[in-house]
Amino acid sequence: MSTLPMILSRRLRPSPYEQRVIENGASAFTLYNKMTLPLIYDSYETAYEHLCEHVQIWDVACERQVEIVGPDALRLVELITPRDMSKCAVGQGKYAPLCDENGGIINDPIILRLAVDRFWLSIADSDVNLWVKGVAYGRGFDVKVFEPDVSPLAIQGPKADDLMADVVGEHTRDIRFFWFIDETIAGTPVKIARSGWSGKGGFEVYLQDGSKGNALWDIFWEAGQKYNLRAGAPNLIERVETGLKSYGADMTIDSNPFEAALEKYLDLDKKAEYMSRDALARIKKNGPARRLVNLVIDGGPLGSMRSDWAVRGERDKNVGMVTSQAWSPRFEANIAFAIIDSSYADVGSVLSVNADGDLRKATVRNEKWQSAPA
Amino acid sequence: MSTLPMILSRRLRPSPYEQRVIENGASAFTLYNKMTLPLIYDSYETAYEHLCEHVQIWDVACERQVEIVGPDALRLVELITPRDMSKCAVGQGKYAPLCDENGGIINDPIILRLAVDRFWLSIADSDVNLWVKGVAYGRGFDVKVFEPDVSPLAIQGPKADDLMADVVGEHTRDIRFFWFIDETIAGTPVKIARSGWSGKGGFEVYLQDGSKGNALWDIFWEAGQKYNLRAGAPNLIERVETGLKSYGADMTIDSNPFEAALEKYLDLDKKAEYMSRDALARIKKNGPARRLVNLVIDGGPLGSMRSDWAVRGERDKNVGMVTSQAWSPRFEANIAFAIIDSSYADVGSVLSVNADGDLRKATVRNEKWQSAPA
Repeated sequence: MSTLPMILSRRLRPSPYEQRVIENGASAFTLYNKMTLPLIYDSYETAYEHLCEHVQIWDVACERQVEIVGPDALRLVELITPRDMSKCAVGQGKYAPLCDENGGIINDPIILRLAVDRFWLSIADSDVNLWVKGVAYGRGFDVKVFEPDVSPLAIQGPKADDLMADVVGEHTRDIRFFWFIDETIAGTPVKIARSGWSGKGGFEVYLQDGSKGNALWDIFWEAGQKYNLRAGAPNLIERVETGLKSYGADMTIDSNPFEAALEKYLDLDKKAEYMSRDALARIKKNGPARRLVNLVIDGGPLGSMRSDWAVRGERDKNVGMVTSQAWSPRFEANIAFAIIDSSYADVGSVLSVNADGDLRKATVRNEKWQSAPA
Repeated sequence: MSTLPMILSRRLRPSPYEQRVIENGASAFTLYNKMTLPLIYDSYETAYEHLCEHVQIWDVACERQVEIVGPDALRLVELITPRDMSKCAVGQGKYAPLCDENGGIINDPIILRLAVDRFWLSIADSDVNLWVKGVAYGRGFDVKVFEPDVSPLAIQGPKADDLMADVVGEHTRDIRFFWFIDETIAGTPVKIARSGWSGKGGFEVYLQDGSKGNALWDIFWEAGQKYNLRAGAPNLIERVETGLKSYGADMTIDSNPFEAALEKYLDLDKKAEYMSRDALARIKKNGPARRLVNLVIDGGPLGSMRSDWAVRGERDKNVGMVTSQAWSPRFEANIAFAIIDSSYADVGSVLSVNADGDLRKATVRNEKWQSAPA
């Protein structure tokens, strides 16, 4: 994995868990919402194997929160997403794409409902705070919009339930997917949600005091030793296998939810006003011009700093672009997401990929990486 | 200068000049508006000495543009800044802090007026595009707001005028400060502005086609050899000496223009509506609680990844924070910006700085680094 040396400055924010991350030997990072996100301790491959079997502790403080609170909070949340948020109970979270008036995806947060009139948008990598502040100001809504001092720590992997039961109590086994509860750990209030950026199960612990990072980390660290706990991170291999899309790579403001295969998270007929209603109705009617697909690329492992490779159709026509890619130990294949002209995007479609000059055959698969339609 | 290894991905955008930057041996980077910004080729010190005498070519593509175009463009631009933009002529740029309804600084761009109803905001490191899109949507303004394919290349240093005259023509010597002209270089349209993030003079060339980065770079590179041109970058030492503040480090959304010593860029009595009017009037009346000051820290050179050091007043009271810091060859001293409680912020005020455990005496200086009031 090639890297560039990055200078830190006050412009790029430290995570509350940074000291523990460095002590545990993090060897490569990225920046996400202007905060360092450790990605690799030893290698993607060893971390992948461990994550599939045991339990990991992840510094995901960079998943920043945008708090919306006040009498118009629900009205504002409804306005910015085509998902029906009136159905989200207090104590529940929902994955909800945010879309602008053109249907373009601004971000794809989990929206947590903390109270009837109070929400956190647990965001991917784009400045949702500024966008929502702008909309709220422009509409004259009676809300406060700001980034609170909240820094998630993820506990991920098949042994996460046992670890959380030991640390917090057996009742945490009953937390439903994307729901959360309030607890106190290390003397500091946290919210514990059943969520996280892997398909291996687990929790995200929303620390609400950035000065308590070490204390929170240490409690899970000590209790986790019997479960072979390691420091880990969102894992490229695992997330592509699982089908988790990364905002900024697999979808951007130039994508819409139909392209990005997010149709099941839309409630286009919801009652509340939302700004993308007309645009999304139009796109749905005409069908999206491009589609984000699962692609298997033939041959041995590929590697790249960015994997922004052209995808070609018949007669070498440029029909799209690879957006994420990894070598999958499970499938023993190069698996990828790619954004492809719709006429080339059906399962079974045979294409080619120009991987930095290395021309490879590639085939569109379904969401379970199978070669037949779902 | 300590660094962390950074993994690139499609989420972090390449600059059109990246190939030339790597070929020229860039050794340390930062991320700015989700784009790589090379900061060091050999060292800050050697680059500083060279910049003071010769001319440098800088990849500053990360200074992204936010285009605002349409019938309501001026109305929108006026709304988001307390500076009077009605006085900005077509062909002229103005440094203009953007402030929200609380007076908080969203960014401090140079705003270029391209036409009566068309502007570029040449931004520092925050997602102004999303904020302005939100405001424009909320107010129902008749404008388009987007990030165009524009990537500035800076030519900086005392020999920049000679180099630009050789490449484009003698008439470029007459471009006034922050004004710009349209030209064609390497067959591609550019705007050439007399501006740049140093106090040593020079230009920014706004490339309007990201595929032409190498071609534009090479033309200046070849013509610049007789002027001892080198690849360079915004230089920490030079910019602190010159007094250039960095958004995200020296000011944030939690600062206001009075704190940040930007009062001379405000036209609080301007006729047009602007969203920070009430908040800024209130802050002006009461006086800011904190002030960004120039600080000289005693003793030999200090170093730090972040230099976010506490500043102490009498009886060890915490009175503020260092926001940027460098060893100045010109002053043979550690020079810094710091945000300080107003009652400790007068020129001559004697404080102390805790530089990662190293306690040093520090004195507030004026904007020219003198120990007497300006």
